[in-house]
Amino acid sequence: MALYKFDKSLALFERACKVIPGGIPGHTSPAFAVAGSYPYFAASGRGCRYKDVDGNEYIDFMAAYGPVVLGYNDPVVDAAAARQREAGSLFNHPTARSVELAERMVALVPGMGWAVFARNGSDVTSYAVQVAREHTQRRKILMIKGAYHGVQAWCRDGTGGLIPEDYEHVHAFAWNDATQAADLVGKHAGDVACIIVTPFHHPAFGDQVLPAPGFFADLRRICDEGGIALVLDDVRGGFRLSMHGSHAYFGFRPDLTCYCKAIANGYTLSACLGTDAYKGAASRVFFTGSYFGGAVEMAAALANLDELEKRGAVPHMMAMGTMLQKGLADLAAARGLQVAISGPPTIPYMRFANERNFRRMQRFSGEAARRGVILHPHHNWFLIAAHQEADIRLTLEVADKCFEIVKKEFGG
Amino acid sequence: MALYKFDKSLALFERACKVIPGGIPGHTSPAFAVAGSYPYFAASGRGCRYKDVDGNEYIDFMAAYGPVVLGYNDPVVDAAAARQREAGSLFNHPTARSVELAERMVALVPGMGWAVFARNGSDVTSYAVQVAREHTQRRKILMIKGAYHGVQAWCRDGTGGLIPEDYEHVHAFAWNDATQAADLVGKHAGDVACIIVTPFHHPAFGDQVLPAPGFFADLRRICDEGGIALVLDDVRGGFRLSMHGSHAYFGFRPDLTCYCKAIANGYTLSACLGTDAYKGAASRVFFTGSYFGGAVEMAAALANLDELEKRGAVPHMMAMGTMLQKGLADLAAARGLQVAISGPPTIPYMRFANERNFRRMQRFSGEAARRGVILHPHHNWFLIAAHQEADIRLTLEVADKCFEIVKKEFGG
Repeated sequence: MALYKFDKSLALFERACKVIPGGIPGHTSPAFAVAGSYPYFAASGRGCRYKDVDGNEYIDFMAAYGPVVLGYNDPVVDAAAARQREAGSLFNHPTARSVELAERMVALVPGMGWAVFARNGSDVTSYAVQVAREHTQRRKILMIKGAYHGVQAWCRDGTGGLIPEDYEHVHAFAWNDATQAADLVGKHAGDVACIIVTPFHHPAFGDQVLPAPGFFADLRRICDEGGIALVLDDVRGGFRLSMHGSHAYFGFRPDLTCYCKAIANGYTLSACLGTDAYKGAASRVFFTGSYFGGAVEMAAALANLDELEKRGAVPHMMAMGTMLQKGLADLAAARGLQVAISGPPTIPYMRFANERNFRRMQRFSGEAARRGVILHPHHNWFLIAAHQEADIRLTLEVADKCFEIVKKEFGG
Repeated sequence: MALYKFDKSLALFERACKVIPGGIPGHTSPAFAVAGSYPYFAASGRGCRYKDVDGNEYIDFMAAYGPVVLGYNDPVVDAAAARQREAGSLFNHPTARSVELAERMVALVPGMGWAVFARNGSDVTSYAVQVAREHTQRRKILMIKGAYHGVQAWCRDGTGGLIPEDYEHVHAFAWNDATQAADLVGKHAGDVACIIVTPFHHPAFGDQVLPAPGFFADLRRICDEGGIALVLDDVRGGFRLSMHGSHAYFGFRPDLTCYCKAIANGYTLSACLGTDAYKGAASRVFFTGSYFGGAVEMAAALANLDELEKRGAVPHMMAMGTMLQKGLADLAAARGLQVAISGPPTIPYMRFANERNFRRMQRFSGEAARRGVILHPHHNWFLIAAHQEADIRLTLEVADKCFEIVKKEFGG
């Protein structure tokens, strides 16, 4: 089989650089991948596969960084969206879809009494934090060191355009260390509005870490004792661990929870849900956008949630992800390579355990891409409900070849 | 003709209140209109008309608060979007649409060398401010008193969930008062990153004010002398004053400019454009979202911009808006009523000049809605390219009846 080439991707990237800062901004930037070993522009998709602008086809394990949960161009979701599009999407008022989707999600997610819809993950994590501040009339946000909650000013530092005041009331503690959280609450006594967490730790460029037994229970107790909101950022995990929210999967009770990626199979939607106690505060935070009422995205979400349930998507993705994780671990071991695979089976992360510079991993990942499989070198992956055993087997065949190359080049 | 009733809207609103804080959050909230005199939920639309959930049909002058610029469900834009949807929208990489749209907009908007795409107006106004901060390595944002730049923390105060630190480096000066701007620049010498303005002043609940002669030239000079970025928030005005940006219409030169509403006829897209001098800073601000790469919205924007040009939409809307403004003024005068109509013909604002409590205006607007015409009581209106003379004539017939009611009830 001839290895893939990316000539059209590279030519288009040159054009892009002339009119777009960096050519490809944000998380899909080729700076995050292996220059010359990856496609830069996509053209079309179906199920768990997509084609790039050079016509190369891939079995995908990135799912557009999460949103594609049923599969690219799922016919049922697209038909529901098209039906709504025929009637219309954006008006001077919301449509009945907003009420139906809020009712659907409140029924689906335990503990939650209301829902609000927006367009980005950052929209809803920022809204949740503001609802917590409004409810508590306090300033401090406690978050996990290295966690990602989006691109609004409060939730990142170290990148361009920010000023220290943007995050002066944001304080971080180590994942799985409730004692550190309690210490911060004590240090800022009476001024902590919320603790915001992801359901498992998924830092960039690092192993994923599941919650230690008792970690969420400890945070819940700290929040209850201090009158603090426990906010779940389920943007990445939502609907890939459980249909009922990742707090149902890990057995804890947040006050507010945020969804985005897998909510509508790629249609532009995010949601914040909260308990009844926070409904008053939620109504006092002014939260809107030109497109927040769009009905097509909500119709897509309604169909997507139905189909995820009907197809048993979460257990199926768990099975396929387990097959992938085990297969990769076995193949690597058979070649005397050390790989560390972490995180839940539906959102796995792999690295070579004996390196910190990602050179083996980049080689592995780049060789896989040139053979038609997308396995990101330093971001967690996402299973897709359309993955079947045959796709996993093909993927493992390619992975074995890539392990062989790594072994040959790096010796172990 | 029987007046419209809103029974299904009200019943749906009751359902909504159970699962959505306030029932209808944000700018489409019925709190902004006349309780019981307006529809609360929309069902379908075509051209310049839409139907609510009770089956009532309206000639619309709100355009979903701006985005619907060609018309509801424009067949050309929807067909372009559907073709892209067939291939797919969201992938691990952008599509060629991102490059084509950036090239298209850079060619369209004078002075701009690059474009970046996002999902909300707030996304791009906040990004522009951060690009200015990054470029200048300064903190201060100067804005116009009463201007609206979105819902991120820096651009609003007085609503729930905010803390004073959110806007401690944001300072306001009066519209059309460049001397005040210069004074603020002097007061914060060496620390002003940008001056952000709308192309004309469109405060909530107030008359719109066009730029005074020399105002933008003065701001440009102040910015040039101080090494300050001049940021244009063209979210509301863009593509309704000129196809080349509202700075082309008013004849000034911003460093960064932001589009949203009319860019894609209701598809979820916003854009920030900038001059080449700001391209380096733009690439250093981390700006992304799960859906930022979506190709369907970009395909819709490409078709929308083409159709706006082909149909001569801006001059047509200017003519229809002028006919509406003149007709309303004449009808009011004929009944001895005092109305003040302000702003550009394509984005008009009307109030009764002899009241400050909006009671006449709410009555006028509510009666118009019950007769099938949407004229918001205290937000500016938006012309739609689908408006034809017959629509304006029908609107004026309804308006005359509503003026008669106001005259009878309020005496003048």
